[in-house]
Amino acid sequence: MPIRTTLTERLGLTHPILQAPLAGGGDTPALVAAVGEAGGLGFIGAAYLSPARIVETAADVRARSKRPFGINLFAPSSVPASPRDGTAVLAKVAPFFAELALPPPALPAAPAQTFDEQLGAALESGASVFSFTFGVLPPDAIAAIKALGMTLMGTATTVEEAVLLERAGVDAVVLQGSEAGGHRGTFATSFEQGMVGTLALVPQAADAVKIPVIASGGIMDGRGIAAALALGAAGVQMGTAFLTSAEAGIPEAYKDAILGAREHQTRITRAFSGRQARGIINRFMTEVDRPETAETILPFPLQNALTRPLRDAAAKQGRAEFLSLWAGQGLRLARRQPAAALVQRLAAETETAIAQLRGSIAPA
Amino acid sequence: MPIRTTLTERLGLTHPILQAPLAGGGDTPALVAAVGEAGGLGFIGAAYLSPARIVETAADVRARSKRPFGINLFAPSSVPASPRDGTAVLAKVAPFFAELALPPPALPAAPAQTFDEQLGAALESGASVFSFTFGVLPPDAIAAIKALGMTLMGTATTVEEAVLLERAGVDAVVLQGSEAGGHRGTFATSFEQGMVGTLALVPQAADAVKIPVIASGGIMDGRGIAAALALGAAGVQMGTAFLTSAEAGIPEAYKDAILGAREHQTRITRAFSGRQARGIINRFMTEVDRPETAETILPFPLQNALTRPLRDAAAKQGRAEFLSLWAGQGLRLARRQPAAALVQRLAAETETAIAQLRGSIAPA
Repeated sequence: MPIRTTLTERLGLTHPILQAPLAGGGDTPALVAAVGEAGGLGFIGAAYLSPARIVETAADVRARSKRPFGINLFAPSSVPASPRDGTAVLAKVAPFFAELALPPPALPAAPAQTFDEQLGAALESGASVFSFTFGVLPPDAIAAIKALGMTLMGTATTVEEAVLLERAGVDAVVLQGSEAGGHRGTFATSFEQGMVGTLALVPQAADAVKIPVIASGGIMDGRGIAAALALGAAGVQMGTAFLTSAEAGIPEAYKDAILGAREHQTRITRAFSGRQARGIINRFMTEVDRPETAETILPFPLQNALTRPLRDAAAKQGRAEFLSLWAGQGLRLARRQPAAALVQRLAAETETAIAQLRGSIAPA
Repeated sequence: MPIRTTLTERLGLTHPILQAPLAGGGDTPALVAAVGEAGGLGFIGAAYLSPARIVETAADVRARSKRPFGINLFAPSSVPASPRDGTAVLAKVAPFFAELALPPPALPAAPAQTFDEQLGAALESGASVFSFTFGVLPPDAIAAIKALGMTLMGTATTVEEAVLLERAGVDAVVLQGSEAGGHRGTFATSFEQGMVGTLALVPQAADAVKIPVIASGGIMDGRGIAAALALGAAGVQMGTAFLTSAEAGIPEAYKDAILGAREHQTRITRAFSGRQARGIINRFMTEVDRPETAETILPFPLQNALTRPLRDAAAKQGRAEFLSLWAGQGLRLARRQPAAALVQRLAAETETAIAQLRGSIAPA
């Protein structure tokens, strides 16, 4: 039986299950469409896509499914200047480039700000949900998105951030607990202070805002979904669980790493992108992100541009030790499964968990 | 209506709610007895008590209530030698001692190991549950506890630790998520790797052991309890929620700090005891535990002994900026309430949360 929440009603979903945007190639059109067809909501993580690629990807999703889907961008932030002296970081990563037979690394130029163009493409994507992370969107962007009737969602890691997003006009807030894999969305406090566990964050935020909240971070099965709903969430957003689905577009070496890792084998690092993100501990992370050399890491997105050739080559060569293996702390529960079967299993498990909970209440 | 789990059945509880051991004076006999009388399980945190004081405290609890209660000790660990040179740490804390008109701090002597005597007293305490943290008890201690018919519980922060405890013979495992206030129980991995969120930790550990698991970390109300049960826990252990109860023996300034703080205002520190623990950020923590001076902090329990006079004086003078304000990340949900009323509220809220969850399943 479907589980009804304010979110499933508003978005026309069968299940309160959102596939997290997996910017970087994880969320293929096949995955987004399969999740939608199964009654959940798939997301295109469009932050690293060009406007043309956004249009193309969304068309591919629409060709595969008439169900609703979402699109996600990073909130625009000031672009850091290219560093004057990159000797230290180049020296640090050069041996890895050599190991993969790549030309020596070069300092990336300050990237162009492409948010406005990306937004334009997203508005024409046919997505019914627009979500963002890393901050609050500019008021004109919010107005444009809402004028189209899209449901707007922001990402918060503290109660204060959830309140700021509600004030800015979002329709729902994704609460990102400290367990979550990938980039931290923290924007109104230090990254460290934004490391609040999902179980603590959800009820406190649900009390502070009137709009629906969506739980994310560490949710991997029906027990986690039932728990999130009990905490007051109207839905869940799951990333790691979908990364090992058949349709996810990540390298096999990355899927294998998730399926082989355990809950205490991830950590937060700036090594790959310059911005804090949780991933499975590997050689690149350990060697590049040490307390004594942390300062040499470039700010986001420069570090991301710097390490991209290395990660691309590592993906082709199946070298997981150089990949950004973003994953959350629930990874023992990851399974290899087609996305539709995954969504169906999650829904069935959620019902079972709720029924068992109900059964534990004993007549006096 | 009561909520029945394997834990409530085994321990004869009405509610699957354990008051966490609050070593340091929080868990007064009045609190332990009130929790038991309300149908939960109170704990005496006896780790800092002398054997005579353990006997006295337990007798006080028994005089107030015939209900079951628990007792908790730290697993014995090798006692660190007193540092040869304490100049740096003494210089660091001396100004605070002066500010509270205390004599200058002195380097503590290596403390005597008192575990065997504490264990002896605990065995005669009349407690029906024995729990421990910071490791695994020696086999002879486990045998002695179980020979008396006490239920034995250990503390784990990873799945691997839960498995080690099960193999050592415990009857249940308390899973301490990263949200939890107070000392981290991590013993089989680095402290950092043991920072797994409750929502991720509980189902993964529940899958790996056959014994009941108890969730702790960030649980502050009935929504949190329902969530923990949905994740597969047979009960919850709550510390911060009980610290603001009327019977808790902590300074008023500490209660006020909890009631005034928010979810992103705690962090992990070694400043007070030398061992990682989560507390509300205050001046002492900020000034003593900085990356560049972290090495000057003495190992546990030497730092604890060093800072004790300061904390005692601060408690008397109502100076929260020098107190170890242990608290978890759910603290916006803390309320001033008598313990019995708190337990009743938690039980009622849990039922409501479960009923609402059940109501969300819609007929097809």
